Amino acid sequence: MKIGIGQFAPIWGNKLRNLEQIRQLLLPHPGVQLWILPELGTTGYQFTSRQQVLQLAEAFPGGQSAEILLQISRETQSAIVIGVIESLAQKIYNSAAVFDNGAYRGAYRKIHLFFEEKRWFHAGEQTPPIYEIDGIRVGIMICFDWIFPEIARSLALRGTQVLAHPANLVLPYCQDAMITRSLENRIFSATANRIGSESINPAAPLTFTGKSQITDPTGKRLGQLTPDREDVLIVDIDPSEALEKSITPLNDLFEDRKPDLYRND
Amino acid sequence: MKIGIGQFAPIWGNKLRNLEQIRQLLLPHPGVQLWILPELGTTGYQFTSRQQVLQLAEAFPGGQSAEILLQISRETQSAIVIGVIESLAQKIYNSAAVFDNGAYRGAYRKIHLFFEEKRWFHAGEQTPPIYEIDGIRVGIMICFDWIFPEIARSLALRGTQVLAHPANLVLPYCQDAMITRSLENRIFSATANRIGSESINPAAPLTFTGKSQITDPTGKRLGQLTPDREDVLIVDIDPSEALEKSITPLNDLFEDRKPDLYRND
Repeated sequence: MKIGIGQFAPIWGNKLRNLEQIRQLLLPHPGVQLWILPELGTTGYQFTSRQQVLQLAEAFPGGQSAEILLQISRETQSAIVIGVIESLAQKIYNSAAVFDNGAYRGAYRKIHLFFEEKRWFHAGEQTPPIYEIDGIRVGIMICFDWIFPEIARSLALRGTQVLAHPANLVLPYCQDAMITRSLENRIFSATANRIGSESINPAAPLTFTGKSQITDPTGKRLGQLTPDREDVLIVDIDPSEALEKSITPLNDLFEDRKPDLYRND
Repeated sequence: MKIGIGQFAPIWGNKLRNLEQIRQLLLPHPGVQLWILPELGTTGYQFTSRQQVLQLAEAFPGGQSAEILLQISRETQSAIVIGVIESLAQKIYNSAAVFDNGAYRGAYRKIHLFFEEKRWFHAGEQTPPIYEIDGIRVGIMICFDWIFPEIARSLALRGTQVLAHPANLVLPYCQDAMITRSLENRIFSATANRIGSESINPAAPLTFTGKSQITDPTGKRLGQLTPDREDVLIVDIDPSEALEKSITPLNDLFEDRKPDLYRND
């Protein structure tokens, strides 16, 4: 399976321009079956009023961004996981939507909101879903979700082989920690982070850390992009490697778990 | 609080010599309140028969090793966490025993056994305990336990401030992963790994990776020893830092968890 991550700097608030940039980023690379793109990749990240967020929110499917993304997924004959602002039943979510070769598959709504995201978004209320794409089980988490080991674990125990991870990282820890997430769950992970800076008056400027990466179930980094250049990384993986949870002839990482002993109180 | 880790190469099967080596390692460093020493630090690691393991096993407290360790903890006026072979109710465990200034405090019995350890040891049947030492809550995990995020999480959610981690590591992943364990749980971790090699005929030789380290709740490595030299690392920490789970004014890592959404089936 060929998977690709794209990192770029969305222009704040300019969805049509960002969607065109995404098309230009992906089109030169036919044959990628699954693309992962950054969190809030169509809109930009930083907000200073609820009104800004409402104006950028859309229905998925149904809105204009969804239509264009469906079209891009058809043109590229790929599945695309990308962060969007989703409006659903009077609530606004920081979501990652899945477009699969012209078909809308659904969205994961971020359950662990970072810092001021709590002012703008509702937290997702559902267990993160898993999508079957070309016969491979793809789980999604968004950015800050990484720091909670439970979500990658939950996705892996439910069969995730490839963890799609759209991100807008401003702290330096995640890329290394995703090696641990891959290793402890024996899954592939694909972190698509954005680059560039945003400074929406009067908020303090944010700089995003790039270094988007793909890791394999042994914790190996299969590739990593730079901190600040628009680029894609495409790797050919064998997703069946993520089905093998043995790390010695006597240790299966999932069978060896002792859930009865992991009391939290 | 002053905590110390010691790394050395136990002589296989020579408990009295190893205990004397431990005394020599610790005595020059008065004022350390908590020492963490390697897994199976009194006996060596590699076995080729159950008989070998039985011969090295002892009761804790009650056996000779426990008596000597109680004495060392009294001489050093410290608490000592060290890996031992524990015999208890007809079962043999890979345990980490706690000696606190002349008093025996108890033992954690390793719940995730690595590879051939499953041939020699019973897996611990109890939720890992937490010990209060000088008013600080100390949780213990042993070596391979690191790869299961649930155990460090369980210890942290139950109040652990310092994670004592005796180890006999032969794989290269753990030291970096412990940065993630510290960060995701906002706790200190102290991994005391052994050095040297063992080759007990007819088993394949094992080389241990040293690089014992102490990390802080922000994921910073406060110090790390070499891959192959006997040494101690002593750091002065403020354990109250591990009580603070906020990483932004709007994010408390423990309150932000969504246990209802972490389904595993």
